[in-house]
Amino acid sequence: MAKENQFVEQIADINADFPQWYTDVVLKTKLVDYGPVKGTMVIRPYGYAIWENIQKILDARFKECGVENAYFPLLIPMSYFTKEAEHVEGFAPEVAVVTVGGGEELAEPLAIRPTSETIIGSMMSKWIQSYRDLPMKVNQWCNVMRWEKTTRPFLRTSEFLWQEGHTAHATAEEAEAFTLTMLGVYKEFMETCLAIPVLTGRKTEKERFAGAVATYTMEAMMKDGKSLQSGTSHYMGQNFAKAFDIRFLGGEGVLETAYTTSFGVSTRLIGAIIMTHGDERGLVLPPVVAPMQCVIVPIAARKEGVIEACEALEAELKKAGIRVTLDKSDNSPGWKFNEWEMKGVPVRIELGPRDIEAGKMICARRDTLEKTEVALDNAAERVKDLLASIQKDMLEAARKRRDERIVYADDMAGILAGVEAGNFVKAGWCGCRECEDKIKEETAATARVFAEGESRETCAVCGKKAEHVIVYARAY
Amino acid sequence: MAKENQFVEQIADINADFPQWYTDVVLKTKLVDYGPVKGTMVIRPYGYAIWENIQKILDARFKECGVENAYFPLLIPMSYFTKEAEHVEGFAPEVAVVTVGGGEELAEPLAIRPTSETIIGSMMSKWIQSYRDLPMKVNQWCNVMRWEKTTRPFLRTSEFLWQEGHTAHATAEEAEAFTLTMLGVYKEFMETCLAIPVLTGRKTEKERFAGAVATYTMEAMMKDGKSLQSGTSHYMGQNFAKAFDIRFLGGEGVLETAYTTSFGVSTRLIGAIIMTHGDERGLVLPPVVAPMQCVIVPIAARKEGVIEACEALEAELKKAGIRVTLDKSDNSPGWKFNEWEMKGVPVRIELGPRDIEAGKMICARRDTLEKTEVALDNAAERVKDLLASIQKDMLEAARKRRDERIVYADDMAGILAGVEAGNFVKAGWCGCRECEDKIKEETAATARVFAEGESRETCAVCGKKAEHVIVYARAY
Repeated sequence: MAKENQFVEQIADINADFPQWYTDVVLKTKLVDYGPVKGTMVIRPYGYAIWENIQKILDARFKECGVENAYFPLLIPMSYFTKEAEHVEGFAPEVAVVTVGGGEELAEPLAIRPTSETIIGSMMSKWIQSYRDLPMKVNQWCNVMRWEKTTRPFLRTSEFLWQEGHTAHATAEEAEAFTLTMLGVYKEFMETCLAIPVLTGRKTEKERFAGAVATYTMEAMMKDGKSLQSGTSHYMGQNFAKAFDIRFLGGEGVLETAYTTSFGVSTRLIGAIIMTHGDERGLVLPPVVAPMQCVIVPIAARKEGVIEACEALEAELKKAGIRVTLDKSDNSPGWKFNEWEMKGVPVRIELGPRDIEAGKMICARRDTLEKTEVALDNAAERVKDLLASIQKDMLEAARKRRDERIVYADDMAGILAGVEAGNFVKAGWCGCRECEDKIKEETAATARVFAEGESRETCAVCGKKAEHVIVYARAY
Repeated sequence: MAKENQFVEQIADINADFPQWYTDVVLKTKLVDYGPVKGTMVIRPYGYAIWENIQKILDARFKECGVENAYFPLLIPMSYFTKEAEHVEGFAPEVAVVTVGGGEELAEPLAIRPTSETIIGSMMSKWIQSYRDLPMKVNQWCNVMRWEKTTRPFLRTSEFLWQEGHTAHATAEEAEAFTLTMLGVYKEFMETCLAIPVLTGRKTEKERFAGAVATYTMEAMMKDGKSLQSGTSHYMGQNFAKAFDIRFLGGEGVLETAYTTSFGVSTRLIGAIIMTHGDERGLVLPPVVAPMQCVIVPIAARKEGVIEACEALEAELKKAGIRVTLDKSDNSPGWKFNEWEMKGVPVRIELGPRDIEAGKMICARRDTLEKTEVALDNAAERVKDLLASIQKDMLEAARKRRDERIVYADDMAGILAGVEAGNFVKAGWCGCRECEDKIKEETAATARVFAEGESRETCAVCGKKAEHVIVYARAY
């Protein structure tokens, strides 16, 4: 039981103290560390490698949609924020402000970007002259800053990394369609690459992005039943185009105003992975984005031929494009098992003298902890198949866990009981702000997303006719 | 002559007004635009695509050297800068300072990183405990900020993008060796990927990085004869390790102090490409990093079969991994030639009815403006060969231009005449700061790099015995 005890010492019990479990996991697996300034994080190599894998995949998908990367300045004149009324109200309170540069007080204070609609809007206004310049689709991978009171690594930090796409279109229809296209790209990515099922749809007016006409969201259920907003795609209508004068000469020679969109996901996705798949032993990483997909642990490493066989296997897997590492350290196999399980490596291969003699290896799946004997012959293909199965099974397992925890309620007590039990609760809503506010006050749950295509008789708060069905949950 | 006139209108004469030529080229080819805050730049998609190609190649090379990517916070407590005496002196005057966050005055002002030795040093101190943790090699791709009075896109802007690698080692020998390894990686990259020959070597004490024991530089000659410092690799000795307490338990159980290094290149490299290869028609991009390597211009596009043949060729080249675009716009071929020449695309293919009939295409090289007939059969291989030749020839041409402009001088008048004529001037130096200062005062040239392995009799300033040979040049 020594091994088990080692876990117990290292990581808090996921069922007893989920927040502490999360903190232990992110720190002890070296995904992240706290920065010296309160609320900041250092993303360590093991965490950053996940982000690099996310970037690589999403970046390719954006490019397939005709989105080009660019880079816009970090510092935005404070006056820009005031140009769109809702936007300034939403972001001004959490902005970090530069007031001194090169030893001198600045004439105008500068905001560190919390998001870049305003500065990109001002540049688009300069770049877009005629309908021939449309659609314009740009994206940047960058850091942004929002001064937050309560912070947690990956989930909410004063600085984080993200991508923000911004597009301008000639018509409302095209802009709205593109907003949904990007939501679709995100959803497909979440499911196939991160193995995270998401509910997608529109946000209520109260919850939408400051300055948007419509915000579409992806909501993922974490293992504690709370929702994590994992990415958003916004249709801005002409709000920013009017504020920043993004106009173009239409085909008929008339000056028209463009329609814009924006969409983003952030390093928050790493938090989503941890809290969707992690377990009492630590991380469980989906193969597609795992920094290491496979670790080889030699058994009886000093016996003749073992290290050589492990190295040959490592070379074979590497050649096939599998991200593999061979653990040749002096630690005991048991110690290594714990270590790599904690780090969430999808497949552990154990290879010892008897296995080699029998032409076999032991493959242990991190997701199910299942161990199977697998022939060494044609090993790369077999490991690839196993990784593909894990990826698929992780999504299905997560979907099953979530679906079991989506319930319905018809009154406030039902919503409260539902979210207290760690569920997403679907309930009817009349559509008024008062009822939405009341739910938040009394249950600490918020309207996460419209459940499109569903209907309920009455609003769970006021009992009037329900116009919509809403998914309520407590959220990160 | 209409075509020629079009150039004249668009871009200043490179021989008459090099600075204006540079500004015209970067703006008109849409590499970059000015940001709203003075001294900032927006890197537009065409410029950013070059940076992406640079990143991809360098990042892979860093990883081969065991360097892992990470991300450290943007904001650094001001007090960190004061821990290393030279460092604070070098960087404090050009720091941008955040004094307000979330609507409140901050207790301690925070610097936007001008470079990250201090914050990474403080984290390494936490992460490094024993010799087993060494060497530690991290890198980040990020934005940094230095408040500059005089700015120019890519060359000197208040914010720029770069990579900064930081390593810690158990011994001075290993750290020094790694400093030179990274200099070698840079030099090889500059020559084979950017086709830019560089002089590499140590900087004088006056010119070295604030806080380093030794700074190694790459100096490239721009077409106006000025030098551009294109990248640096620093050996820090124990300066930062002492300031930030980076200590480790050695193999013998004794607490020892680590040795650190850092190395970086930035978006300045895009400026180096422009000013090394550009000509009177605009950009000339090296194929390895060109966003588009090849453009196909249909001739008599409305004639039957032309567009189809162009599309088939485009598909064939794309399939072979060539970055190719087919210009199907309504503009005339002459207009397209000018446009793509200005944008520096390495190969232009002209394909019209007669070419198709003859089974040929016209390939125009951007670097030499040479046009040749090339068989359409096996086109991808032929274009690849041509791109490889261009890449090689661009380096050789740049090397020849540079080597012809490296001269020797034995006195101040000789140095002045040399740099006035747009040369790099090699001259003897006694080694004292006074003589170095005097050269800067009287010639506006600075000591760019030690010319290792060379010797001269006397110092060009004081006439005393020369201890070193220095390459002097005016610089960006």
